[in-house]
Amino acid sequence: PKIVTLPGDGIGPEVTAAAVAVLREVAPDVTIEEHLIGGVAYDTHGDPFPQVTRDALKDADAVLLGTVGGAQDSAWNLLPRHLRPESGLLALRKALGCYANLRPVRVQPGLEHLSPLKAELARGVDILIVRELLGGVYFDGDRKIDGDTAYNTMRYTTPEVERVARVAFWAAEQRKGRVTSVDKANVLEVSELWRRDVTALRDREYRGVHLNHEYVDSVAMLIVSDPSRYDVIVTENLFGDILSDLAAVIPGSLGLMPSASLGDGSGLFEPIHGSAPDIAGKGMANPAAAIMSAGMLLRHGLKRPEGANQIDRAVALALREHPTRDLGGKADTQTFTRAVLSALE
Amino acid sequence: PKIVTLPGDGIGPEVTAAAVAVLREVAPDVTIEEHLIGGVAYDTHGDPFPQVTRDALKDADAVLLGTVGGAQDSAWNLLPRHLRPESGLLALRKALGCYANLRPVRVQPGLEHLSPLKAELARGVDILIVRELLGGVYFDGDRKIDGDTAYNTMRYTTPEVERVARVAFWAAEQRKGRVTSVDKANVLEVSELWRRDVTALRDREYRGVHLNHEYVDSVAMLIVSDPSRYDVIVTENLFGDILSDLAAVIPGSLGLMPSASLGDGSGLFEPIHGSAPDIAGKGMANPAAAIMSAGMLLRHGLKRPEGANQIDRAVALALREHPTRDLGGKADTQTFTRAVLSALE
Ligand SMILES: CC(C)[C@H](C(=O)O)[C@@H](O)C(=O)O
Ligand SMILES: CC(C)[C@H](C(=O)O)[C@@H](O)C(=O)O
Repeated sequence: PKIVTLPGDGIGPEVTAAAVAVLREVAPDVTIEEHLIGGVAYDTHGDPFPQVTRDALKDADAVLLGTVGGAQDSAWNLLPRHLRPESGLLALRKALGCYANLRPVRVQPGLEHLSPLKAELARGVDILIVRELLGGVYFDGDRKIDGDTAYNTMRYTTPEVERVARVAFWAAEQRKGRVTSVDKANVLEVSELWRRDVTALRDREYRGVHLNHEYVDSVAMLIVSDPSRYDVIVTENLFGDILSDLAAVIPGSLGLMPSASLGDGSGLFEPIHGSAPDIAGKGMANPAAAIMSAGMLLRHGLKRPEGANQIDRAVALALREHPTRDLGGKADTQTFTRAVLSALE
Repeated sequence: PKIVTLPGDGIGPEVTAAAVAVLREVAPDVTIEEHLIGGVAYDTHGDPFPQVTRDALKDADAVLLGTVGGAQDSAWNLLPRHLRPESGLLALRKALGCYANLRPVRVQPGLEHLSPLKAELARGVDILIVRELLGGVYFDGDRKIDGDTAYNTMRYTTPEVERVARVAFWAAEQRKGRVTSVDKANVLEVSELWRRDVTALRDREYRGVHLNHEYVDSVAMLIVSDPSRYDVIVTENLFGDILSDLAAVIPGSLGLMPSASLGDGSGLFEPIHGSAPDIAGKGMANPAAAIMSAGMLLRHGLKRPEGANQIDRAVALALREHPTRDLGGKADTQTFTRAVLSALE
């Protein structure tokens, strides 16, 4: 199998290198091809998602992404919107047809103390957030800034809702069998469609799954004050962006959050943290999320659950014995990566 | 001065009665007139914001609202959208021209243990969230659900951005002088306008205020993992809805969160919690947020800061000595209200 890595900007290259080292160990038969995305791609090719990268994806079995984007005051942010690093990421998601972004939020036993939440609330949390990734206000073409007015359009169609809801129901069947669909149906027509279509799909095809609906403002509260009430959460793109970053605080560091984006073609696997330009190049970034994303790549992209489990176990061990700085420990990127490598059975 | 009370649905009447009892004590010269809003208004007049209520607002100096809406499976939720209780609330906000919703998030000394956050994170938190309340996706007329597609439009104009940003800058000048403006400018044109206009206004008229910009997903994380970094937060309607409910968990109970909505005419004051139909009529609701909203009414609506301070002190005392059930205590609505009344100096 062939994997394309897109290290991207900031700490992306460091954490991707760590993930690649682990991947090579666990899946030595895999071919790895590296390409450019984001700001570095713009600097080289004048395009944050250049054609050469696009072409390389055609026969890839899975894509491992680092991070994209610069500091708020970076020169990239002065470019026209379609040339900025983030637009490269959005174009990549679109090109791969990755409509379902899976973000597991798990508090590892023994690591409850890292959470900003009281330990008794953090303990045992195990939520899967399924975020719709190709629709809503992110991609709708009906958008404009013009003089003193601007707008974006939050749009969904039934097929878009159904395909991501299917992923959530399927995941719930492997887990505790409960899906919470999140919307703002008391205010938005687009949420009314979302709620109607998710409900209809459950009634038609997933009767064994328990489905409930909650408002996004309420979920924002409940996910931090009573996280254990959730199993699978499914929601639209913007709400999912906010809620999944929010949920990421529960384990205590963004550095512990991998993600998998699945859809029509090859999957996209990436840590959910940003490019952290302030610490880029210093060798101190926590590569755990990138390494765990490589684990998700093995599980969902290459269908090698044994390899994925091996990685998850090794990361858990390394986290306990060599915590990185963001976790209050001392390990730098290299020390942590070595710890993972030597913990692989 | 004349105050209109709109107790609304669920626990609204109970908590409003408590707030009125306190108001009568602190401001005995005030005339209070009660009217219907929400589901109960629909049941009586076939309209969640009936003409008789609308008329009563004309000469009101301030409006004290309870809560609106029913349970998720309530018959009200089967009505056409414009007849549902929530539409009454939105129409009320619009009628009063209340474009700036102020939501203070304060952890009272000695009550840190109520927070789901670790005490050292909750201690001393004092944030003011200023939410734009009449624009964005909530009110834009370009919205539709039709067959298998639906959309809403997130639109802002420069005057809408400026008037709410002014409130935030003004508030910051009374506080620590820092404003964080929240948007999703890496993806949305409407956020690009927001950011541009907030920045221009600061540069033109509020040079003494420190302004920074953060993305909404990042703020959702940081507000619970490092709340002390914020002074005043200003944001658009939907982001403000989500972030202010989220921030409300920091003090430990929604029952501690009052709000003030200010704008062109008389202000609207309301607890931010919902109608809690499950406990309605049982006399066990925590009226603290409603009582504190009456305090905000005195401060911002009638310009009587002494009365407001009197209420705030009495509530803080009552919370310590007679915590309600949502706070792990035993006090019912009446006991708590009596405690506030007797703590008034
Ligand atoms: C960088 C940005 C465009 C992106 C998003 O909003 O999707 C990021 O926040 C994420 O969640 O992956
Ligand atoms: C009930 C609903 C329409 C309302 C809103 O979203 O504004 C509520 O959540 C609030 O925050 O006051």
